[in-house]
Amino acid sequence: MNAHSHTYALPADLPLDSGQALAGVEIAYTTCGELAQDRSNAILICHALTMDQHVASENPVTGKPGWWSHAVGPGKPIDTTRYHVICANVIGSCMGSTGPQSAAPDGEPYGMRFPVITIRDMVRALVALLDGLGIERLHAVVGGSMGGMQALSLAADWPDRAARVLAIATTARHSAQNIAFHEVGRQAIMADPNWREGDYYGANAAPDAGLAVARMAAHITYLSEEGLTEKFGRRLQDRPDGQPGVKGFGFDADFQVESYLRYQGSGFTRRFDANSYLYITRAMDYFDIAEEHGGTLADAYAGSTARFCLVSFDTDWLYPTAESRHLVHALNAAGAPVSFVELSAPFGHDSFLLEVPALDRVVKGFLDG
Amino acid sequence: MNAHSHTYALPADLPLDSGQALAGVEIAYTTCGELAQDRSNAILICHALTMDQHVASENPVTGKPGWWSHAVGPGKPIDTTRYHVICANVIGSCMGSTGPQSAAPDGEPYGMRFPVITIRDMVRALVALLDGLGIERLHAVVGGSMGGMQALSLAADWPDRAARVLAIATTARHSAQNIAFHEVGRQAIMADPNWREGDYYGANAAPDAGLAVARMAAHITYLSEEGLTEKFGRRLQDRPDGQPGVKGFGFDADFQVESYLRYQGSGFTRRFDANSYLYITRAMDYFDIAEEHGGTLADAYAGSTARFCLVSFDTDWLYPTAESRHLVHALNAAGAPVSFVELSAPFGHDSFLLEVPALDRVVKGFLDG
Repeated sequence: MNAHSHTYALPADLPLDSGQALAGVEIAYTTCGELAQDRSNAILICHALTMDQHVASENPVTGKPGWWSHAVGPGKPIDTTRYHVICANVIGSCMGSTGPQSAAPDGEPYGMRFPVITIRDMVRALVALLDGLGIERLHAVVGGSMGGMQALSLAADWPDRAARVLAIATTARHSAQNIAFHEVGRQAIMADPNWREGDYYGANAAPDAGLAVARMAAHITYLSEEGLTEKFGRRLQDRPDGQPGVKGFGFDADFQVESYLRYQGSGFTRRFDANSYLYITRAMDYFDIAEEHGGTLADAYAGSTARFCLVSFDTDWLYPTAESRHLVHALNAAGAPVSFVELSAPFGHDSFLLEVPALDRVVKGFLDG
Repeated sequence: MNAHSHTYALPADLPLDSGQALAGVEIAYTTCGELAQDRSNAILICHALTMDQHVASENPVTGKPGWWSHAVGPGKPIDTTRYHVICANVIGSCMGSTGPQSAAPDGEPYGMRFPVITIRDMVRALVALLDGLGIERLHAVVGGSMGGMQALSLAADWPDRAARVLAIATTARHSAQNIAFHEVGRQAIMADPNWREGDYYGANAAPDAGLAVARMAAHITYLSEEGLTEKFGRRLQDRPDGQPGVKGFGFDADFQVESYLRYQGSGFTRRFDANSYLYITRAMDYFDIAEEHGGTLADAYAGSTARFCLVSFDTDWLYPTAESRHLVHALNAAGAPVSFVELSAPFGHDSFLLEVPALDRVVKGFLDG
């Protein structure tokens, strides 16, 4: 479908949770659907770790459809004949918004001089974008995974800016296991000699090997054990002539799951920046809404004016249902209206990105209701 | 306690599942407890991926107690006043048995010229050792994790060699997810420029960075999510002056779990060889007893003369209880006597190595019964 790509330059420095401020921030975003004259029909979709602003239209880097194109469009669950959909690349990323590969004030890429950011900093930039667009109150803020974290953060710290909050397959805080997996990825990147302390832009080689390992480790956490078994099991790679594979008694990719993971890893390096991976995973690891509000999650939503809808998936072991329940209890304690559903889907955490008809119904029902 | 260290040189070439054969194989092993005159009281303990023959006595490399010293010794669950305990380093490893760092017939280290081995090949070497020791029938073969795989393999292919088979926290086949995690580790090692296609012995540097990342990724799978949360949660590192930590807004180890993982990774490189890690994980990934016996697991145990005891842990997500149940059903179908218990322990897969009193009771009850 048609979407419009824009860039918005923040009119002022962006204050950060670290105490620093970021100057000259640009936000790359897309829009689709008409904005109503009273500006009441805007839906902000927040993207996950490695996604981008191309939610419903072809991705210019990969040539693939937008990452949620089955869910966003005319007549789709997020119906662009009714809603004006905005999706912006988060700061720290590498798809047009200011991040480690952007030029610092001295004209050279930031690299590791880019300040460490938080999820709340990403949302602060999104709110500045909404200010620029003159959108005071969103019809809804929507996101899965890290996108859900942004939705929850917006609701906590800008409680009047969204009438509805739809957070899918997410959590109000990163667990020790979540942090551990991210740390493995960061160590893989930083162990790559091509990383050069982040100063690889313009060099002959980027830390692709480390980034690929990071992606492979993370990718396993996005899938369910059952899904992996169903999709690959212990099946061996077919031979080039189409004959069924046999064990090679070597270290090539014998098993289909090995080949798949290698493909995921190497494909990722063609579209993502290693330093962005470091910064965004760090932001996710720092994420803990309760900690940002005196230690009690319910307090974060005491002033909320939004209706909430939370969705988890039964096979998601990265942000399992217990994390959503934890949030439901806090929202109940805060007196916020919340509906919650655990959906059954075989795809693990990735279910939020895939075609799950029950999710479509929940999304549409909540947004149109 | 006192244990004796020995080395046994196999009198003949060791045939391998790949069709190759390995010449000049040496097996490093330890023994403790007296062997009865009729040689009927021997227990073979098989070790896990990164363990070794030092099951009950101080490890000469690390200076730490043997990896199962709380379970093996006089009056302990595996009582060395009753039993003669044998534990041998698997082939492919790096603690004295023949592996990639051993000299090939040309006098140079094998490196990646070492043949790819299987769990059954490891067991074939262990059976050759038992032959050399004149032990026709073990009182029991015992192991956890990869040690359990060896115990199950011995029972399947040398059905008269053990009267009891005790397999803890293990599986009869490696799942797609198991393979995926191992592949991440292998890719991390092979991405390290110091790996040099395995030809790093005698070089200035070993692929320690890659091996550390591999260990970190694997280590997460050994622990339970609950255990990580209980042990570390989101706690920050204390500052050097003992004050509670604050977020550093950088990429140092802020969280205790990060510091712990880095410590696990770097400590591992001081005691383990990267090529051995490649070969042993490959052997585990190839492991599928059913596939080795015409596709039906029960057929593998049709000729068994042993009693079996299987133990799983409720928080082990690497080899979850379902894998043990799958094996129980096959053993039932084969008419083999089998007892099975799922124990509750908070430590995830690592529970088999730790002090779990209920495990001690099961081990003692089964071996002495």
